[in-house]
Amino acid sequence: MAKKLLSFHHFISLLLLLILSFQSSNGLPLKSTRRSPRLLGRFSKPTKPLLKNYKYETRYFDQNLDHFSFADLPKFRQRYLISFEHWVGPEKAGPIFFYCGNEGYIDWFAENTGFVWELAPRFGALVVFPEHRYYGESMPHGSTSEAYRNASTLSYLTAEQALADYAILLTDLKKNLSAEACPVVLFGGSYGGMLAAWMRLKYPHLSVGALASSAPVLQFEDIVPPETFYDIVSNVFRHESRSCFNTIKTSWDALLSEVHKEDGLLQLTKTFHLCQKLNSSVDLSNWWDSAYTSLAMANYPYPTEFLMPLPGDPIKEVCRKIDSCPYGTGVLECIFEGLNVYYNYTGSVDCFNLDDDPHGENGWNWQACTEMVMPMSSNRYSSMFPEFYYNYTEYKEGCWEDFKVTPRPTWITTEFGGHDFKADLKNFGSNIIFSNGLLDPWSGGSVLEDISESIVALVTEKGAHHLDLRAATSEDPNWLLEQRAKEIMLIEDWIKSYNDRKHLAEI
Amino acid sequence: MAKKLLSFHHFISLLLLLILSFQSSNGLPLKSTRRSPRLLGRFSKPTKPLLKNYKYETRYFDQNLDHFSFADLPKFRQRYLISFEHWVGPEKAGPIFFYCGNEGYIDWFAENTGFVWELAPRFGALVVFPEHRYYGESMPHGSTSEAYRNASTLSYLTAEQALADYAILLTDLKKNLSAEACPVVLFGGSYGGMLAAWMRLKYPHLSVGALASSAPVLQFEDIVPPETFYDIVSNVFRHESRSCFNTIKTSWDALLSEVHKEDGLLQLTKTFHLCQKLNSSVDLSNWWDSAYTSLAMANYPYPTEFLMPLPGDPIKEVCRKIDSCPYGTGVLECIFEGLNVYYNYTGSVDCFNLDDDPHGENGWNWQACTEMVMPMSSNRYSSMFPEFYYNYTEYKEGCWEDFKVTPRPTWITTEFGGHDFKADLKNFGSNIIFSNGLLDPWSGGSVLEDISESIVALVTEKGAHHLDLRAATSEDPNWLLEQRAKEIMLIEDWIKSYNDRKHLAEI
Repeated sequence: MAKKLLSFHHFISLLLLLILSFQSSNGLPLKSTRRSPRLLGRFSKPTKPLLKNYKYETRYFDQNLDHFSFADLPKFRQRYLISFEHWVGPEKAGPIFFYCGNEGYIDWFAENTGFVWELAPRFGALVVFPEHRYYGESMPHGSTSEAYRNASTLSYLTAEQALADYAILLTDLKKNLSAEACPVVLFGGSYGGMLAAWMRLKYPHLSVGALASSAPVLQFEDIVPPETFYDIVSNVFRHESRSCFNTIKTSWDALLSEVHKEDGLLQLTKTFHLCQKLNSSVDLSNWWDSAYTSLAMANYPYPTEFLMPLPGDPIKEVCRKIDSCPYGTGVLECIFEGLNVYYNYTGSVDCFNLDDDPHGENGWNWQACTEMVMPMSSNRYSSMFPEFYYNYTEYKEGCWEDFKVTPRPTWITTEFGGHDFKADLKNFGSNIIFSNGLLDPWSGGSVLEDISESIVALVTEKGAHHLDLRAATSEDPNWLLEQRAKEIMLIEDWIKSYNDRKHLAEI
Repeated sequence: MAKKLLSFHHFISLLLLLILSFQSSNGLPLKSTRRSPRLLGRFSKPTKPLLKNYKYETRYFDQNLDHFSFADLPKFRQRYLISFEHWVGPEKAGPIFFYCGNEGYIDWFAENTGFVWELAPRFGALVVFPEHRYYGESMPHGSTSEAYRNASTLSYLTAEQALADYAILLTDLKKNLSAEACPVVLFGGSYGGMLAAWMRLKYPHLSVGALASSAPVLQFEDIVPPETFYDIVSNVFRHESRSCFNTIKTSWDALLSEVHKEDGLLQLTKTFHLCQKLNSSVDLSNWWDSAYTSLAMANYPYPTEFLMPLPGDPIKEVCRKIDSCPYGTGVLECIFEGLNVYYNYTGSVDCFNLDDDPHGENGWNWQACTEMVMPMSSNRYSSMFPEFYYNYTEYKEGCWEDFKVTPRPTWITTEFGGHDFKADLKNFGSNIIFSNGLLDPWSGGSVLEDISESIVALVTEKGAHHLDLRAATSEDPNWLLEQRAKEIMLIEDWIKSYNDRKHLAEI
């Protein structure tokens, strides 16, 4: 009976969430619909990234806005970082390391992809980090506000256009550097990893292989169960501490109870040190959700500043705070202590702002409402998050509300490979490493087993979101060193096979 | 010295051709710039094709105008012919034969692709003939005149969009027919053959193989010499009759001499029985050019009505007429006798109209001015056509004049495979038959040697443009029967391998 009541309660709270989520419609993207979590978490967009550790030049390349039509559209300047520091040049067939930029400032990704920079001297490689269109400085229509103005200006923000940008930039670079014969190795993490893997399928002639780290290429339609993502986050917390998991699991109800009290929203504003008065519980629950999922992604074994400044093993720290909450303290106060690890590890924040995207410029919302439809559910038995079920009709309506756009939920599988994606990879793909850490909630939507001799999975039990792409540290555990060593060996193999083939063709 | 004069003369005539070719600019596509010949020849667009021999239904499918952006564009209705007559259904994994429609009415191609219809009962196959966007009835923007109004309305006429149309239609059909597990075999001739081959590279998960007949996938940039096409046409004529070749070769100068006479254009109008007075020699020389190149394509061993009603071995007939021209007859009169075989074999034409495309609705002109930039030259030593050299700057300027569009001459190789296309096919492709007849001028831009175990070339010495795709006749020579038998065996192999793989996966 208790269970049934809980379930009913959850149903009501879901209903409330949904009703509330469709109220704000000032034309800017809403933050509150039940979309898939952003690949890189929210509240995590540094505005002034500094790439102080690596030598490179910043260059720009004029790209067509639509590669697949001849509409008379203005070109845009794509930014890319390029480093010749270690390149041995075309005479020695020095490789080109090409990182497929993802949804943010390219210097941010470059800063957090030390592996590529550190590999360059060993391979005598040219390093290129192109920025993804509609992110960072690579803005069509002259400015971010113009590019993000409406569905019409945003309409060319798609993965296929980004891949074509990379194909064209790469072809042009190779030609201008007389490097046509130099082998290209693709890298990418998260969405960038998806792009790197897809690039192997769609433009195989332009590279010798791809390291696709934490790339959830299977997170579409019904290829993996929709509960996968939230189940992994929940499991990581439960594995860390069952009581921590339970506290979080009950806290959503506590939040709703508080909301229904008189002055509940005001009380919540105080408890959570918010800068502005809370308008709806959904803003707060989204803020919680973001912290937990982002913590699971950035659950690195040493302190990092990727999504936020965080201690090593941050979930351990969060749960330590929640579990050590003094007897008699309310559950919401305990949750606040835990969330502080994510949102205020440096202790410098006076109050929290729940509006992470005041200008509606986070392109991932658009991408999730067009091509990147990743069904997500939260199962009431296995998940510590509120129960909810993926409902495409509501998803679609939310996208129409936000952007006046209709998603194409089956397009990605049509374009890049169908429901039997692993068989497709096996039959038609080659030279891809899918690397994943099982602490990463996105790992469940990636490839976790060897597909063929040349499409291999490197899985680490304790890794988080594209940990392998990070710069080496003195604290790297052995299993991480081993993973990277395997990656290097495979990349060497790709290049050697390519050179052998080329040599054979020449004699 | 004579040679030098001739060369100078040719230079002047080329200059004249060029000057004349840029005079008309009423906004409609010009017919006179030195573009690549149309894949299927000009003057060859039947307006009321009749598919009387085969049973099928005509259906329509709503397609997005731009698959690679989310601009708010109107959908268009894609027509497709579908025949369930011989399909054994999804329970028996009956194959799907899918013809990649090319630049014209789909019923025209269906009528001239009897091979697919005749194969269906043997394989228990479903037959689908989708129409290419912007051709036939599959017109965006509501009507042909609207679709072809300007560069903006035409801008979505590209090969990538057409491939995506096919991918989406195919995926939808399979789903609706519960035929997800049924193997798909692609067919295509000429440009349709290019699409079939490219579909194997870009959407390999959607088919088990492709028969790409007379598909000039190498006719881009400098992959094959630009003289290839006209040299093949010329060789076919020379091989038929050296005197015929010589007469044609000298006739271009005779044409120019005539033009320079007083009342020359009027005289030419009479000699060639034109309906309207000739405005410039270029209109006439284009008309000649079209006849010779189309004759080489349609040089079938038995009478056909593909491009025009023609006798069997039509070039033999043309040369017989030219060579048997009574002593003392002018060269132009002799040429007219020859051309009559192509333009008036039935004898029903009273006068000839040089304007083959009065409404500017031949989409190939647009495609040649955007993606399908196929460099063409005519070498003065080896060719029977006037000397001319491919000049991209002029090509580009002509396209701007005609359509206000700038071509992207390196896009096709970036998108589908680079200069080393054969190596790309070998490394990344599978299950493609490139079938070619060496009489076909497009064969020089196709794949004429086996690339790998599963990418094979079937070459016949005496075949013309996608002869193998035509319906069987009692006059089919043995070498054609053998070619088709090999194709059937290979298709059977593809389906068998697919079924074996599927069976293995199920146990």
